[in-house]
Amino acid sequence: MELRPFDTLNESKGKGIIIELKSGKQLIGKLKSFDQHVNMVIEDSEEKVNNETTRKLGTVFIRGDTIIFISTA
Amino acid sequence: MELRPFDTLNESKGKGIIIELKSGKQLIGKLKSFDQHVNMVIEDSEEKVNNETTRKLGTVFIRGDTIIFISTA
Amino acid sequence: MELRPFDTLNESKGKGIIIELKSGKQLIGKLKSFDQHVNMVIEDSEEKVNNETTRKLGTVFIRGDTIIFISTA
Amino acid sequence: MELRPFDTLNESKGKGIIIELKSGKQLIGKLKSFDQHVNMVIEDSEEKVNNETTRKLGTVFIRGDTIIFISTA
Amino acid sequence: MELRPFDTLNESKGKGIIIELKSGKQLIGKLKSFDQHVNMVIEDSEEKVNNETTRKLGTVFIRGDTIIFISTA
Amino acid sequence: MELRPFDTLNESKGKGIIIELKSGKQLIGKLKSFDQHVNMVIEDSEEKVNNETTRKLGTVFIRGDTIIFISTA
Amino acid sequence: MELRPFDTLNESKGKGIIIELKSGKQLIGKLKSFDQHVNMVIEDSEEKVNNETTRKLGTVFIRGDTIIFISTA
Repeated sequence: MELRPFDTLNESKGKGIIIELKSGKQLIGKLKSFDQHVNMVIEDSEEKVNNETTRKLGTVFIRGDTIIFISTA
Repeated sequence: MELRPFDTLNESKGKGIIIELKSGKQLIGKLKSFDQHVNMVIEDSEEKVNNETTRKLGTVFIRGDTIIFISTA
Repeated sequence: MELRPFDTLNESKGKGIIIELKSGKQLIGKLKSFDQHVNMVIEDSEEKVNNETTRKLGTVFIRGDTIIFISTA
Repeated sequence: MELRPFDTLNESKGKGIIIELKSGKQLIGKLKSFDQHVNMVIEDSEEKVNNETTRKLGTVFIRGDTIIFISTA
Repeated sequence: MELRPFDTLNESKGKGIIIELKSGKQLIGKLKSFDQHVNMVIEDSEEKVNNETTRKLGTVFIRGDTIIFISTA
Repeated sequence: MELRPFDTLNESKGKGIIIELKSGKQLIGKLKSFDQHVNMVIEDSEEKVNNETTRKLGTVFIRGDTIIFISTA
Repeated sequence: MELRPFDTLNESKGKGIIIELKSGKQLIGKLKSFDQHVNMVIEDSEEKVNNETTRKLGTVFIRGDTIIFISTA
């Protein structure tokens, strides 16, 4: 069976990820869940701007259409 | 059964949430309901800009496509 | 039966609402009807910018995708 | 039967309307037809910017997704 | 049978049209074909900016979602 | 049978085309293939800004929703 | 059988690609997988701005709607 992008995302569940937002900010946290629209829930999260932590955010639901890319922390 | 992002959002019903809008503003309130487009209704809500309350808004219907992320208050 | 965001909007029919537009302007009026795209018709409406009434508009059809949120007047 | 936003728009057929565009301009004309995407055809139309007529345009087909709202002239 | 916006566009086939683009530019040419997304092909076309012809373009395929409105030349 | 916009695009296969992007840049190359979303592959391509070649790009896959229009080179 | 844009993208699997983002940045890496929305996973990736490497990113999931074009590295 062919590997799909969501398979790779699935391997990051429970691990730290960095979410690059269209707004220019980043969200850092542990990936809890996602769906086919790339809506995501992360835990123990922080907002970062230019590599500086600007806010502690706890559990966050992110709308998929605001995301540019996701990398492993 | 696998956990989905909307399951986590469902746990916030009746609780305080912070909605980060694409406009750069925030809406704070108690989550009453949401649907699969992330349209939401919050109650006893306030608009905030740079952490300052700018307006008391009561019950607010928010269109999902204007939301970046939702965190617990 | 579970409450949905559109149920709350339905309770505002015939009442005064404030529509916050992506353009930065507001429309104030009495909610006549809406559909599942959040297209709306309001009556006896006014356009406001920074809390100042800029135009009297009568009956207005608003395209849903230009709306950020709707609150009760 | 419940009234829908498009029912109100239908009552404006053959009458003068003002179309507020996302571009900041307005189109004024007589509503000839529209469809469920809010695509519209208006006749005897003019483009206005800041209440000044900038162009006479005759019959115009407007793509619905460029419209903020429509009011009666 | 009720008249629809695309019926009016159909009457412009083979005739000169002016296409107002979201980019602020205009395309002028003879309408060859269009589809339900308002994708269009025009012939003998020119690009105009502020009423000045900036380029001769020959046959052009235009993506519908970049169009604000279409008027008869 | 009625001519459609994609029929005209089909006639450009194997020929030089100019793709005008929403970003303000242009891509020049030989059209290899396209689909109904106007996703395209061009070969022997170059990026141009203000008529100056800024990069040689070889084979390029272009996402349709970033395209304003396509003309023959 | 007719060649489609995704066929060409498929030939780049396991090879180096350059992804041009709407944000003005570039992502460079080895293409691991993609889907019909042009969502992609690349490995051993780097972010570049104006041809300068700004970050090493490892494995990255990119949302398709943030991509302008993809070229071979």
